[in-house]
Amino acid sequence: MNQKEYSKPLNLRRVDVTDTFWKKEMELIRKEVIPYQWEALNDRVEGAAPSYCMRNFKIASKLTKERSLHKDVPKLIDINLNGFEFLPEEENKLENRFYGYVFQDSDFSKWIEAVAYSLTQHPDEQLEKIADEAIDLVCEAQQPNGYLDTFYIINDMNKVFTNLRDHHELYCFGHLAEGAVAYYQATGKDKLLDAARRYADYIDSVFGTEEGKCKGYPGHEIAEMALVRLYDVTGETKYLKLSEYFINQRGQKPYYFDLEFKVEPKDRDELRYLYNQAHLPVREQKEAVGHAVRATYLYSGMADLARVTKDESLYEACVNLWDSIVDRKMYITGGIGGTHMGEAFSFDYDLPNDTAYAETCASIGLVFFARRMLEMKADSRFADVMERTLYNGVLSGMALDGKSFFYVNPLEVNPLACKKDERKQHVKASRQKWFGCACCPPNIARLVSSIGSYAYTESENTLYVHLYMGANIQKTVGDHSLHVKIESGFPWNGNVTLEIEASTPIESTIALRIPDWCDTYTISKLQDDERTIRDGYLYITKTWEGKEELQLDFLMKSKIVHANPNVRENTGKVAIVRGPIVYCLEGVDNGEDLHLIQIEEKNCIIEEALGKIEEESIIKLTVSGEKAVVKDEEVALYRTKPLEYKKEVFTLIPYYTWANRGESEMSVWIRQK
Amino acid sequence: MNQKEYSKPLNLRRVDVTDTFWKKEMELIRKEVIPYQWEALNDRVEGAAPSYCMRNFKIASKLTKERSLHKDVPKLIDINLNGFEFLPEEENKLENRFYGYVFQDSDFSKWIEAVAYSLTQHPDEQLEKIADEAIDLVCEAQQPNGYLDTFYIINDMNKVFTNLRDHHELYCFGHLAEGAVAYYQATGKDKLLDAARRYADYIDSVFGTEEGKCKGYPGHEIAEMALVRLYDVTGETKYLKLSEYFINQRGQKPYYFDLEFKVEPKDRDELRYLYNQAHLPVREQKEAVGHAVRATYLYSGMADLARVTKDESLYEACVNLWDSIVDRKMYITGGIGGTHMGEAFSFDYDLPNDTAYAETCASIGLVFFARRMLEMKADSRFADVMERTLYNGVLSGMALDGKSFFYVNPLEVNPLACKKDERKQHVKASRQKWFGCACCPPNIARLVSSIGSYAYTESENTLYVHLYMGANIQKTVGDHSLHVKIESGFPWNGNVTLEIEASTPIESTIALRIPDWCDTYTISKLQDDERTIRDGYLYITKTWEGKEELQLDFLMKSKIVHANPNVRENTGKVAIVRGPIVYCLEGVDNGEDLHLIQIEEKNCIIEEALGKIEEESIIKLTVSGEKAVVKDEEVALYRTKPLEYKKEVFTLIPYYTWANRGESEMSVWIRQK
Repeated sequence: MNQKEYSKPLNLRRVDVTDTFWKKEMELIRKEVIPYQWEALNDRVEGAAPSYCMRNFKIASKLTKERSLHKDVPKLIDINLNGFEFLPEEENKLENRFYGYVFQDSDFSKWIEAVAYSLTQHPDEQLEKIADEAIDLVCEAQQPNGYLDTFYIINDMNKVFTNLRDHHELYCFGHLAEGAVAYYQATGKDKLLDAARRYADYIDSVFGTEEGKCKGYPGHEIAEMALVRLYDVTGETKYLKLSEYFINQRGQKPYYFDLEFKVEPKDRDELRYLYNQAHLPVREQKEAVGHAVRATYLYSGMADLARVTKDESLYEACVNLWDSIVDRKMYITGGIGGTHMGEAFSFDYDLPNDTAYAETCASIGLVFFARRMLEMKADSRFADVMERTLYNGVLSGMALDGKSFFYVNPLEVNPLACKKDERKQHVKASRQKWFGCACCPPNIARLVSSIGSYAYTESENTLYVHLYMGANIQKTVGDHSLHVKIESGFPWNGNVTLEIEASTPIESTIALRIPDWCDTYTISKLQDDERTIRDGYLYITKTWEGKEELQLDFLMKSKIVHANPNVRENTGKVAIVRGPIVYCLEGVDNGEDLHLIQIEEKNCIIEEALGKIEEESIIKLTVSGEKAVVKDEEVALYRTKPLEYKKEVFTLIPYYTWANRGESEMSVWIRQK
Repeated sequence: MNQKEYSKPLNLRRVDVTDTFWKKEMELIRKEVIPYQWEALNDRVEGAAPSYCMRNFKIASKLTKERSLHKDVPKLIDINLNGFEFLPEEENKLENRFYGYVFQDSDFSKWIEAVAYSLTQHPDEQLEKIADEAIDLVCEAQQPNGYLDTFYIINDMNKVFTNLRDHHELYCFGHLAEGAVAYYQATGKDKLLDAARRYADYIDSVFGTEEGKCKGYPGHEIAEMALVRLYDVTGETKYLKLSEYFINQRGQKPYYFDLEFKVEPKDRDELRYLYNQAHLPVREQKEAVGHAVRATYLYSGMADLARVTKDESLYEACVNLWDSIVDRKMYITGGIGGTHMGEAFSFDYDLPNDTAYAETCASIGLVFFARRMLEMKADSRFADVMERTLYNGVLSGMALDGKSFFYVNPLEVNPLACKKDERKQHVKASRQKWFGCACCPPNIARLVSSIGSYAYTESENTLYVHLYMGANIQKTVGDHSLHVKIESGFPWNGNVTLEIEASTPIESTIALRIPDWCDTYTISKLQDDERTIRDGYLYITKTWEGKEELQLDFLMKSKIVHANPNVRENTGKVAIVRGPIVYCLEGVDNGEDLHLIQIEEKNCIIEEALGKIEEESIIKLTVSGEKAVVKDEEVALYRTKPLEYKKEVFTLIPYYTWANRGESEMSVWIRQK
């Protein structure tokens, strides 16, 4: 494990994604989500909870200007600075008042990040102009010292950084930095990047181990990875050091959050702050715990830092936490977070299907973490999870028309229970337009529009293909350049064509992931000495000349999958997967009462056929099985008479396409006869 | 359904329970629970949360005396009269202050009721003296107007009956009246009965439809049935009318609780107060909803009223609610309340095993309801449920040594999940000594010690045997008396002997329930014209002369039971019952990971053997099946390789005996192969 092979994502300006499957998703983001988001940020979506995001920036900008002119700024009415504030009532909307959640600024940052990626793939002057104007407004809100968070700018600048545990200043900073870097990389414009740097400089002046500095760290992580990204693009070491400080300080005793909340020394001893992953120093954390989004963001930051600093102990911590998730705490869809209480990881193997949290953002966080692990070592175990998560747990978060979203991604849904059972109130049977707490839709937008940076990474001489995704890629090798054109039938078939074109002969390596779901694959035209296999990757090293073509075929067939026997929820059940796609039963195809369906592993026949869900072309599966008959006259709750079963053929659809044809039951896991 | 046959419970002074099984339970109550309870009521149990019950009565008595002498009573410190108050800290204990829950008085009433029943079966001068002294103290607290609730006597008499929804004055009154009637019936002493009557008279002067009277009704029901009991024993019609008022007023609009809490008229329209069964007038209630204990107490009161008033519409409402519970909302153990949220009924067929609430008190309430339905009509469907509930959902509430108790009675437990999963924090893997909110232990005590009044009821000429329980019974028929001696092997075998002795020839009927779990039974020595079968009862009508013996044998054999297919939790699973006893797997017998066990209905072999759980002689079952093998080296969370199963024989024990041998897993429902 310790032999690293570092690589980094390709700049998106050198990746033109042409993939049939992903291009369509990206176009949804470009045409539907980004414009819709902009409307949402400006409170112009009828019937949706207002965001107040841009309104807060406007107020903050105005106040900043007035304060700089020494104008008398009206005293604000009292506000609870310890709570989350959300006052959506139109009639209560007061001038000069902050509205929405404390982390509302991040809506802008996620939007600008998605816009940036989108511009790399599809230049759009009009959109860029809107983005520039939004950036102007945001920058006007920045304080002379660099501070930039509208909640405190509007409410009380004397209180900044006094509630790190709950108030997301450092989280908002992280998103701002991520958006700023992306916008700079996409457009070359550095106004927002400069603002982020000035804010980072200010934060650096406030936090640290030095005498007199605040010993705090983020309650909601993301700044850790954002700072490494800021370092990557600026080369400024202090940003790396600041990230390192945040990561190393986390979980040290006495807990900073105890000090912040003035917890009595006698009450400080017990283990706490698992929710924030601040219960132990990060290198001592072996188990993924707490809020799943925060966790994966922290682990991503740790992986970033381990990569740059070559810190082996930090890398090992990352591996432990990765294994904790992937071996014991992950749904088959790549969903993570087994409990809605704290939107958190549950204990090992506790993966309930119908009360799952499996937040879209947490799956996105897992993709972040996976890519960062791959940047240190191309090991297919990271990429397999990344692929599974993207095609299932992430994409299920968005409707096929890009107009509605799941926050929670259960693996089993009974719409009646969602309505009647308070214990399932977090589970929805249909996607919703937008959320008051709008983390998931913009997070999908920024991930999908930058998907090319997850599919491929590069080192000096090697192009790593982690995901098979159609694209045109410029890979520089020394002073030369290799053009790689990839065509792929993923996720519906395993045919992949690589066309490699070198203007002059170039020796270089292309590393191709061999997916875990694939038992047999073929590859054309290679000499034995040109190929090696290592950690699930096929390395092709040769001198490329002119235009060459590689044909790959990964056999993609339907498979029946079992869960580890420790997963109580799934004992006696099976799931059906095909390649990277997890399938599910939906009521609209199979009638309600999906729990009455059972299949026999040995004798069932699974067939594949082209099909459509709305406009989406997919491969549907059918499986032979049987379903118990409900007889209305048999009312007894308990009886000795066994159920009668009737043979039937059931239809399975890709999990990510469920809930696009109205509300009905859904189940990934099927009872085994 | 509409042909009624009214009967009433036998006075316990005419029933001497001799049953091997139940006598042992009654002795536990007498020797363990009643003395322990008395210590608990007086805050003398080390390590248990103090009850404060008798302390509150002492303070209230003192204040009452001081006030009657016009002494200056010190002003109390502020107290939140809208919340539940519980201040258990010793160092904060202030003189003259009420402590414990607002319903703490009822602890005394339940205790005195259990004491009363116990005295009928086992006279005990010492205990009776303690009880008389306790009654003296309680009566000293009574106000000149009859009011008797220490929470308000101590805190503020100006606030009585101002929070009917949450403050249990009428609930405490109901328990007081039940205890008073029982003590009077047991001992002939009427001091407490008089106090209860004076309190009832006062309540009657406060509540009613008449101009100027309060239109409220209890937030937690029980007064309804208690008042009918007070009417039964005193013949005083106003108590019946008051019960009728409470039942008929319930759920009328505008909701009284809305008026009490000054809810704005615009906010009053929606359906609410389902928790309190006050959402609709009772005759319009078709579905059992809300807090399951409150619900069954209300339905019991409705049944009482329907019996006395011969109100057909009320009877029909009772039947609807009965069916709602028994056909759609009851665990196989007789547990009710599928959700801990509001300790309530969930929606139809939602009967999760591992998050069940199934409060012991709710099962006790179901027994109350069943007995009252039987009092209107001997239909075995009521008695079958009563029997099932008593032997399983009720008895599981108490440890075999009578020293610890379950509040919640799940059908599946993984001790690890109880500790790690906040969603299961209400589920305990082992019984606890006593509860701050001490409803279940004293409720078991009063039920078990009066079990004879559930087993048998009588009409003028008929003795109904609902439960087969060894006893000596005096049945008066006209001026004569029939001595009936019953011996029974229940619940371990179906052999029952009835010895009927008539000093002079007496024509009379004995009605014997034919249990639903019994396919074949034999009965000795009867002429055809002496026997008829109706509604699951065998009626034997004849002239009894001298000493006659009837031999009954109900074939009791192990059976595999399936749940209704609408119960999602149990699809693909079976339970094993034998006679009235529901069996379960326990980890201590079968190793952990009970979820990995599966049995094949058609080919499994179930064997019976005598066994012991601690000191309890039982019949154990063994069943052949198989268990999946967990291989530590197979860490993958998802895999195509099916589980390997190994043949094994598993041990099943009666559900009520689980958790008596340390903490381990438990499951009633077993996966079917």
